[in-house]
Amino acid sequence: MDTQATMKPYVIGLDLGGTNSVFGIVDSRGEIKATTAIKTQGYDTVEEYVDASVSAMQIIIDQVGGIETIKAMGIGAPNGNYYSGTIEFAPNLSWGHNGIVPLAKMFSDRLGVPVALTNDANAAAIGEMIYGVARGMKNFIVITLGTGVGSGIVINGQLVYGCDGFAGELGHVIMRRENGRSCGCGRFGCLEAYCSATGVARTARELLATTEEPSLLREMDPEQITSLDVSIAAGKGDALAKRIYEFTGKMLGEACADFAAFSSPEAFIFFGGMTKAGDLIMEPIKKAYNANVLNIFKGKAKFLVSGLDGSSAAVLGASAVGWEIPD
Amino acid sequence: MDTQATMKPYVIGLDLGGTNSVFGIVDSRGEIKATTAIKTQGYDTVEEYVDASVSAMQIIIDQVGGIETIKAMGIGAPNGNYYSGTIEFAPNLSWGHNGIVPLAKMFSDRLGVPVALTNDANAAAIGEMIYGVARGMKNFIVITLGTGVGSGIVINGQLVYGCDGFAGELGHVIMRRENGRSCGCGRFGCLEAYCSATGVARTARELLATTEEPSLLREMDPEQITSLDVSIAAGKGDALAKRIYEFTGKMLGEACADFAAFSSPEAFIFFGGMTKAGDLIMEPIKKAYNANVLNIFKGKAKFLVSGLDGSSAAVLGASAVGWEIPD
Repeated sequence: MDTQATMKPYVIGLDLGGTNSVFGIVDSRGEIKATTAIKTQGYDTVEEYVDASVSAMQIIIDQVGGIETIKAMGIGAPNGNYYSGTIEFAPNLSWGHNGIVPLAKMFSDRLGVPVALTNDANAAAIGEMIYGVARGMKNFIVITLGTGVGSGIVINGQLVYGCDGFAGELGHVIMRRENGRSCGCGRFGCLEAYCSATGVARTARELLATTEEPSLLREMDPEQITSLDVSIAAGKGDALAKRIYEFTGKMLGEACADFAAFSSPEAFIFFGGMTKAGDLIMEPIKKAYNANVLNIFKGKAKFLVSGLDGSSAAVLGASAVGWEIPD
Repeated sequence: MDTQATMKPYVIGLDLGGTNSVFGIVDSRGEIKATTAIKTQGYDTVEEYVDASVSAMQIIIDQVGGIETIKAMGIGAPNGNYYSGTIEFAPNLSWGHNGIVPLAKMFSDRLGVPVALTNDANAAAIGEMIYGVARGMKNFIVITLGTGVGSGIVINGQLVYGCDGFAGELGHVIMRRENGRSCGCGRFGCLEAYCSATGVARTARELLATTEEPSLLREMDPEQITSLDVSIAAGKGDALAKRIYEFTGKMLGEACADFAAFSSPEAFIFFGGMTKAGDLIMEPIKKAYNANVLNIFKGKAKFLVSGLDGSSAAVLGASAVGWEIPD
């Protein structure tokens, strides 16, 4: 074993989002020692993006004692492939939408440390395992409820990547085989089309358009309604808004019942903006799960909300991918 | 490492079925050196069943050179739990239906060798990995099409047992959330209710009752129709019988498309009596899979039929569980 390497105290985490790229230098207890950020967009080429990233990182690397203190770098990125360290055809990245970008290798060449990359939901799962509510768990599923529905699956203590690095797309299991909603993936009836933040807003517009029921949401332009608006209205006791979350949670619970038949996880962990709705979403999930799951699984799985601090969760998750790189 | 132990050339496999218990002594290349069988039923207690088993096994153990040549024993059994080595509430076993039977420990105590036990579908998956078409694969799913629909899931080269030993119940994902068929598990719309051998027979009865279409199957008592009858009629060109397999295969393909979103396997391997229908079932599976799977998975997974010899497949699978026991 390379004792030098194992004694390096920090890992860099990069949360590469559609708008911002947030860098954090993280120690083994999940404390963020230094942080910086750049815009993700606005570069013509990936080389320019990497140049800007390295310049920004250099400042925080110097703050913690130089590159000698850095064990590795972990990246959570849309369409990230762990096996190849590439970002593949990411639709929302100006420098990454029409090809395969070997981002892990590019950063590794520039920094001289090992770099691992995975998609954001997988990073969240590893983050929960190392720093969050999944510490000590060997079998769990993280479901990210954001603009889309993502997932990171851990089985026998390992992230599930599958034969090609793309396993864990639970937002795209089919929940409605007849008359399903169109999904961004080009198919119909996916979990994501109903249970993402945008799916919740669609449910709101559908219910407002097809009923006469009074609701605080009627005071808004239907096209502008967000899942947060629905959550606020539900918090004020709005019956229609509550029903939207009940519908959403019920479908998530039904989906989790099927996921249990696959990997019988110890816990389902929900991550992302929509978890702020709290019991409004979690109670219907649990109720539908126990009503739908196979008898042998009833009452076994825990339903948890991410234990990672909201603002830094994605950076911590990304850094955790770096800690997982073998010495 | 115990060099003695690793040099023992044989493992005993026990295929514990509802009717017969078949024992085989198997070498590391999957050759069955000796075999025997007893009835599974007809014993008041599990002790009597184990007594009868050990007496039967003793003869074949002596044939191969005594217990010193036996490395381990593997058991494939309904409701078998790998973690605990127990059979739990197996409805079809007279001596095992109302409790938890520590069968692995009982055999280990009597034989003096390590004994591992798992359910039959998991045994089939390990059998395919060690002796069958999954040799060299790290990510695949075995789907058993018999009286029920079972599954054994391998991820990163390991069988998926989940937090409680009961993972891999893919026969019980819900394929019809509205007006689903009743399933033996007490719920409605499970894959097993449609795609098991009994499900195929139900589909036949439904189609015969709800259409006037001529069919060879109309010559039979509807209650007596089996999936084999449907397969024979389809082989003779019977259009209605063919449609039954198309319906069955389509649903299996749709289910596999969801399973791909979970673990992105390199292959789906079908095992059990219904695979004898060959392309009648396999072609609709592949067609529906590619029509329904997420774009990134299209055309990647192989669809294979078990490579284990039919009559001895279950014994080989069980023996493979024995080989997997660490030294």
